[in-house]
Amino acid sequence: MIPLPPGSTIGILGSGQLGRMLALAAARLGLRCHVYADTSGPACDIAAASIIGAYEDRGKLLAFARGVDVVTYEFENVPLVTAAILEKSVVVRPGPFALAIAQNRLVEKQFVAELGIPVAPFAPVVSAADLTQALEQIGTPSVLKTQRMGYDGKGQVRVECPAEALDAWRAIGGEKAVLESWLIFACEISVLVVRSGTGEMRFYDSPVNTHENGILKVSTVPSGLSPKCLLRAQEIAASIAEALDYVGVLAVEMFYVGAEAPDAFIVNEIAPRVHNSGHWTVDACTVSQFENHIRAVAGWPLGATLRHSDARMTNLLGADAAGWAKHAAEPGACVHLYGKNDARPGRKMGHITRLSPKTC
Amino acid sequence: MIPLPPGSTIGILGSGQLGRMLALAAARLGLRCHVYADTSGPACDIAAASIIGAYEDRGKLLAFARGVDVVTYEFENVPLVTAAILEKSVVVRPGPFALAIAQNRLVEKQFVAELGIPVAPFAPVVSAADLTQALEQIGTPSVLKTQRMGYDGKGQVRVECPAEALDAWRAIGGEKAVLESWLIFACEISVLVVRSGTGEMRFYDSPVNTHENGILKVSTVPSGLSPKCLLRAQEIAASIAEALDYVGVLAVEMFYVGAEAPDAFIVNEIAPRVHNSGHWTVDACTVSQFENHIRAVAGWPLGATLRHSDARMTNLLGADAAGWAKHAAEPGACVHLYGKNDARPGRKMGHITRLSPKTC
Repeated sequence: MIPLPPGSTIGILGSGQLGRMLALAAARLGLRCHVYADTSGPACDIAAASIIGAYEDRGKLLAFARGVDVVTYEFENVPLVTAAILEKSVVVRPGPFALAIAQNRLVEKQFVAELGIPVAPFAPVVSAADLTQALEQIGTPSVLKTQRMGYDGKGQVRVECPAEALDAWRAIGGEKAVLESWLIFACEISVLVVRSGTGEMRFYDSPVNTHENGILKVSTVPSGLSPKCLLRAQEIAASIAEALDYVGVLAVEMFYVGAEAPDAFIVNEIAPRVHNSGHWTVDACTVSQFENHIRAVAGWPLGATLRHSDARMTNLLGADAAGWAKHAAEPGACVHLYGKNDARPGRKMGHITRLSPKTC
Repeated sequence: MIPLPPGSTIGILGSGQLGRMLALAAARLGLRCHVYADTSGPACDIAAASIIGAYEDRGKLLAFARGVDVVTYEFENVPLVTAAILEKSVVVRPGPFALAIAQNRLVEKQFVAELGIPVAPFAPVVSAADLTQALEQIGTPSVLKTQRMGYDGKGQVRVECPAEALDAWRAIGGEKAVLESWLIFACEISVLVVRSGTGEMRFYDSPVNTHENGILKVSTVPSGLSPKCLLRAQEIAASIAEALDYVGVLAVEMFYVGAEAPDAFIVNEIAPRVHNSGHWTVDACTVSQFENHIRAVAGWPLGATLRHSDARMTNLLGADAAGWAKHAAEPGACVHLYGKNDARPGRKMGHITRLSPKTC
């Protein structure tokens, strides 16, 4: 694909804060954005135009496709049928293959494992009989996760002992699931890689992530892990991006189980999109994850992923957002608010990036 | 004014690239923007809503005022009548007094001079007789400038000798003008100060500026001038901001005539708005000039003006913009394009900020 010239229009599926920040990044480059989503959201205020419609509404999707030069998405649960409808008339990046893999935990784990990359031991659970067999195979403590629509700790429950398993399965709706071994790890990091249509890849420094009730709370760079160790993590992410023939920013969450382990990293999850753990790149890098995603999708040269400062990104979840005025007054804090009205518990309302001089 | 909470709406007069970058900065803070302008422009694509109307259209202006919580502007030639109409129903920041001063060169020079701040020797020119008298008083070489609507080198012409003066005056339309002494100076800097509604002031590091055909081409920080020297420049800008009871970002362009001169700085021009010579703050500072202007206007605490990197901002003028793909491929270059279609000679199409590690 030749680079889309300034003035071209990027179509974004989804109207959340990731779409909003993608639209802001596109605007810097003189690119316009149109949003398609089933509900109006934070991205709509920034987009040059928005279409609100069901993700299966062929007529509206085709109207959306006619108005844009390329389509991308801000969440991995875009129905595959949506991508299929759009692909007939416009390029969709990352391609639907990445979507198909990433939106089903079982498929994703099998895909990653087949690449020879360590994942937590897992077994599929479709029936009560499967559950019994999975418990024998995986043991406890373990974690039962729905195969689909899981994010921010949703659709998963810890299983302490076999006796709890059936209740756990009911708690996540008795849906198709995966039972995973509960891992002991030193920390979680994410690798943020951007890959162009020509296969060039660039990496942001990997943040170390901490969670609160299953939702990302803090991402910090540098992570404290050794360069050699982080290089191994990048190789893992690179092989996944290659295998997906990926275009755009891909986030790979990994557990670090210690340098002495035969495999230092175990892949937890991949996200075929810009990622919350990369928000600090807006304030601490020459070119942010959002801009690099837009660049890749638009066929532009990738931008420098160089980090000029140390950074610590903290999510404002639910009622945290009420502290905006306090954060705005804090020296050195970069305040980001998403323009959402309803501060439901755990809802991502904004984030703060705290910068400090670069140490390594 | 109590801080406008996230979700509030900032009204921006003008639809150019400064309005666009103000809207992008507001979006980061969860604030919405409405644009009012007499022609559609780059800011409209980013704004949640735009009204296109004459600056004297009372009905449209009042409709605009009803939809916003505060009004600001991106250019100093907003008609005073516009501000007066709006002020009856909504707060306008910076206040109309700053507009009145800054949109007339003669008034501006008199105002600055009355504060005891050095300006180039000047004399008003309204008639041919004035011109003769001004030439006697100011001498040549000098520069004849229209009193109103001058920017980017427009409305001004150099006068080498008295014999050229009448033609020079005709060349700028025979309008009310000011004859200024042609100064010899070491360099031009600008002071970018942000002042809150409570009178708090913060300064960005002052860039040194170079021009091409009267249009800003490059701004560089650090400027190379000594901290003591730059402190004097900041004091000058502070006294102007105080005298204007200013709220928002104010840019004061100054000529540096050498440390040994009794007055090291001579004020050239003030701009009651965010300024081209501060565009590097987006990439090199914790909080950009655009965000700090929005913060001041919205009654928020001011943000840190701390610079984390050295920076060199180069404007893409007219046909320069055709090189966007080359610039996009340059390591460490932050590319900004304004989404303008028509690359007329000298038109500001975008800019590049090149970052390097902080030296001082």
